[in-house]
Amino acid sequence: MHYQLYYWTGIQGRGEFVRLALEDAGADYTDVAREQGDAVMDTFLDGQEDGARPFAPPFLKAGRVVVAHVANILHYLGPPLGLVPGAESRRVQALQLQLSVTDLVAEVHDTHHPIASGLYYEDQKDEARRRAEDLRENRLPKFLGYFEDVIEQGGGLHPLREHSYVDLSLFQVAAGLDYMFPRRMQTLWPRLPKLHALKARVEQRPRIAAYLASERRLAFNTSGIFRHYPELDAA
Amino acid sequence: MHYQLYYWTGIQGRGEFVRLALEDAGADYTDVAREQGDAVMDTFLDGQEDGARPFAPPFLKAGRVVVAHVANILHYLGPPLGLVPGAESRRVQALQLQLSVTDLVAEVHDTHHPIASGLYYEDQKDEARRRAEDLRENRLPKFLGYFEDVIEQGGGLHPLREHSYVDLSLFQVAAGLDYMFPRRMQTLWPRLPKLHALKARVEQRPRIAAYLASERRLAFNTSGIFRHYPELDAA
Repeated sequence: MHYQLYYWTGIQGRGEFVRLALEDAGADYTDVAREQGDAVMDTFLDGQEDGARPFAPPFLKAGRVVVAHVANILHYLGPPLGLVPGAESRRVQALQLQLSVTDLVAEVHDTHHPIASGLYYEDQKDEARRRAEDLRENRLPKFLGYFEDVIEQGGGLHPLREHSYVDLSLFQVAAGLDYMFPRRMQTLWPRLPKLHALKARVEQRPRIAAYLASERRLAFNTSGIFRHYPELDAA
Repeated sequence: MHYQLYYWTGIQGRGEFVRLALEDAGADYTDVAREQGDAVMDTFLDGQEDGARPFAPPFLKAGRVVVAHVANILHYLGPPLGLVPGAESRRVQALQLQLSVTDLVAEVHDTHHPIASGLYYEDQKDEARRRAEDLRENRLPKFLGYFEDVIEQGGGLHPLREHSYVDLSLFQVAAGLDYMFPRRMQTLWPRLPKLHALKARVEQRPRIAAYLASERRLAFNTSGIFRHYPELDAA
């Protein structure tokens, strides 16, 4: 199967969670908007294409099927890419974990956009400072501590006892938070040894290492979801 | 199958999306915390129970399987409850639509808690006022307009051409927003005739009508996700 990924150009964003799965599996895919520009997504978002209409990017086209939302795309791709355990109960568990990643990513986004996603960060900086403090102090320890516990219950290496798309997404969260909050993460990592080791293991997977070294892996930047604003970070 | 639903007592909250599916299907279920108190959920949240560990309520126990996150629970329950079309591509589409409901519900929650979910509304009222304006003016027309279009593309009655759990969730969103923003919704409904008709049809389904008239259906209140604060509403 040839897959077509549609996502905004210029940032890693939510598309990166899908990209990592396609890269790790060595899948045959095109990153369509990067080749043809963001406007190529308009007919899908306007409902002029066949298949399920997406609310927003990322979405994936696989034959005649259109699939949107990161967690749904990964749930769909898991079996053909060999990135989820075979048992149905484990597939459900993978989706459950991925949906907590989704929630964390939404909170990360809202940290620099607490008032409105349509306003600039500069128009909501004071509110962002208060929200960032809550993310650093309360939400990150809760979310990351949960994932640390789940890895431990999975045998110490993987949340699902074997490599899966959830590992790839947790790598991306860890890398994004290291960029966003370098000072805060330095104080949190000693409490999260298993998650930290998972991040290092994913980085060393041959296809992921090749991808991270390629031009396809954009650098984190302050247009994406994980943004480094020094004034929002603290140990 | 006997299902056990776990969710906070005293509010409809996110648990209500699951409750509506169980009620509509006439499923055999227990609303466990309502019978035994919120503390009954602690051992699940602490990781002391078998099965996938939930990050937060709601979660569902079905035999030995534990499933968390509303969209995942509904995806899991869809086939046995007859609340999703049979084709795999339609199941994927249902999950996709439900995940946009999830996103909208998160934005609704953050409207009265834009700075921190752990602070009281009273501690973030000014920020809530700005965020509510964005929800009323920009986000609600975008989300609800999307659902209106999807219903139209589904033949005018249902997002998936037949009744599904997505209809039930859209009913809950519509009912919640009518409570939260009565003035704003009065101006929006004329632009959303199909969604408004869907709401009325769901209300008239015999099991839903019986449920809504029962003591099991709690009233909306200002501890839940959809909250009515008059100062946040406007036409």
